[in-house]
Amino acid sequence: MDDFRKSSATTDSFVLAKRPVGAPVLSDFKRISSPVIQELKENEVRVHGLYYSVDPAEWNVGEVVKSEVVARVAESKSSQFRVGELVIGEFPWSTESVVLSDKVRKIDIQKAFASEYLGVLGQSGLAAYFGLVEIGKPIAGETLVISGASGAVGSLVGQIGKLFGCRVVGITSSEIKMKFLTAHLGFHASLNHLSDHFSEELEQACPNGIDIYFDDVGGSLSDSVMKWMNHLSRVVICGQISSVCSEATVSGKRIESVLLNRSILMQGFRVSDYEKKVPAANLKLTEWLTDGKIESTETILRGFDRLPEASSPHMKASKLGKMIVKAEDWL
Amino acid sequence: MDDFRKSSATTDSFVLAKRPVGAPVLSDFKRISSPVIQELKENEVRVHGLYYSVDPAEWNVGEVVKSEVVARVAESKSSQFRVGELVIGEFPWSTESVVLSDKVRKIDIQKAFASEYLGVLGQSGLAAYFGLVEIGKPIAGETLVISGASGAVGSLVGQIGKLFGCRVVGITSSEIKMKFLTAHLGFHASLNHLSDHFSEELEQACPNGIDIYFDDVGGSLSDSVMKWMNHLSRVVICGQISSVCSEATVSGKRIESVLLNRSILMQGFRVSDYEKKVPAANLKLTEWLTDGKIESTETILRGFDRLPEASSPHMKASKLGKMIVKAEDWL
Repeated sequence: MDDFRKSSATTDSFVLAKRPVGAPVLSDFKRISSPVIQELKENEVRVHGLYYSVDPAEWNVGEVVKSEVVARVAESKSSQFRVGELVIGEFPWSTESVVLSDKVRKIDIQKAFASEYLGVLGQSGLAAYFGLVEIGKPIAGETLVISGASGAVGSLVGQIGKLFGCRVVGITSSEIKMKFLTAHLGFHASLNHLSDHFSEELEQACPNGIDIYFDDVGGSLSDSVMKWMNHLSRVVICGQISSVCSEATVSGKRIESVLLNRSILMQGFRVSDYEKKVPAANLKLTEWLTDGKIESTETILRGFDRLPEASSPHMKASKLGKMIVKAEDWL
Repeated sequence: MDDFRKSSATTDSFVLAKRPVGAPVLSDFKRISSPVIQELKENEVRVHGLYYSVDPAEWNVGEVVKSEVVARVAESKSSQFRVGELVIGEFPWSTESVVLSDKVRKIDIQKAFASEYLGVLGQSGLAAYFGLVEIGKPIAGETLVISGASGAVGSLVGQIGKLFGCRVVGITSSEIKMKFLTAHLGFHASLNHLSDHFSEELEQACPNGIDIYFDDVGGSLSDSVMKWMNHLSRVVICGQISSVCSEATVSGKRIESVLLNRSILMQGFRVSDYEKKVPAANLKLTEWLTDGKIESTETILRGFDRLPEASSPHMKASKLGKMIVKAEDWL
């Protein structure tokens, strides 16, 4: 009986097959099939993936990729979860997983769309909130510049910056994304860093200099931004997509003298640094979302199979906001 | 009568004759003689220089160099100052100057030595205090690494760090200075950054990694320090002596990914950023000094003529602590 069930039921997963050179491409992933776990132990929950968050992250070669996933409970040996409930957690990129109940949180789809728990109400929202509020410390009237502005985090940072009364300038990489930032999200200005006159355009967009730079990109783009940073300004290092390489190999202008001459603060962070403040931040983000003060921007690809494609750099050009893959057999 | 006095009485000053390439050398300065001002206007004070602070600073070519100077009041048209009183202020490198009374503060030589008002109780003390306390935020048990540790600021940072219960590791550039830091100031360890095994020695001196890096030097020395910085550590950028060049030309490893991966804060500052907190900081520093908890380290050259020499890089190797020039005709 046991043998029969093991051979008939399999789960599909994506494994990182080799170390990506720069950002991962399709061929860096391998789809594998493995037998499902038959019998749950005490406090285990079987979940079926629904929405998979796709983020720039480091994974281990040979292991199943993991990210935040919104899933449905298919079976439960935990008193806290019932079959059919929607939950979220750091789950593998598998169609089906068995996870410990203390790694699973319920979500309330009366309060927000399921996918929004991966964006505004997930790590992206918290990164935007903590980076801007805890490090950027925005003050009304200040100028906030955001790189990667049309991304999951950047698009939220700009909207939150507006709520604080900042002049919000978004840096992105195409005409369509520029339009999106100003016409749709109401940024005060948007710029294409690929423009030949980027530095001059940035200067014009920031007539009072820059007080906060929320940086998700880094590299030479940042060199241009640093030129216009004000005395006592803040640089929030949220990501460095431009340098997916290792720490040691990326060179550029030494920043210390710039920080010294203008008393600039530069700080890297991760959401877990602010673990104790997560509940309060989530409350605030939920309030803003339900009040319509901020909105979620998502690019959703349909089909579990598209996870590798969603991770690859060629998607970057067309995507807006949070990149999500939705399993095909769910509505 | 007026003509006679003008021709007979002159004051000597040092002018920056040409833009230094890197740190200033003797030939960058020119000694000039000019007639003294005969008649003081209301609220003016005539001062004779006593102790001149020598700091790495940017001066304008063709102008008389300025720094903090302890001086004696020789004549006063201000009700606040009497002849013979000792005062301090940002005065020119002149044997005699006429200054506005609101640019002059009295010092109390019952409380501290006159020269200490340029060091512990001057800009160096405030830089050490604000950099370490406001940015470094030391916690007992943390490891504090200081570059330029035997200098005016660094030697104080280490002593204050010890008061906060930190493990204090000083980086300097000679055996004598290393000895001075550990044997005399009681640093827990000291290192020579010119050692072939500097990075390994640093790792050994910091078995728990580094929580605070107080940086007065920068450059490749900092690359070694950054390797051992802990998660949530702080880098205080107080000076960048290694790069006296302009902002634009100094390259090295891009630091942003390092800051991001370990949630590191890096911040430049100047004392004036904390203007409102100066009285409280001075009170604390005076208390520590009079209680013998911190001590002043000074290298004093005797003779007004030696100001250019005191500023030049060849002095760097032999000096300890605050560099001061004492006018010859004063005790």
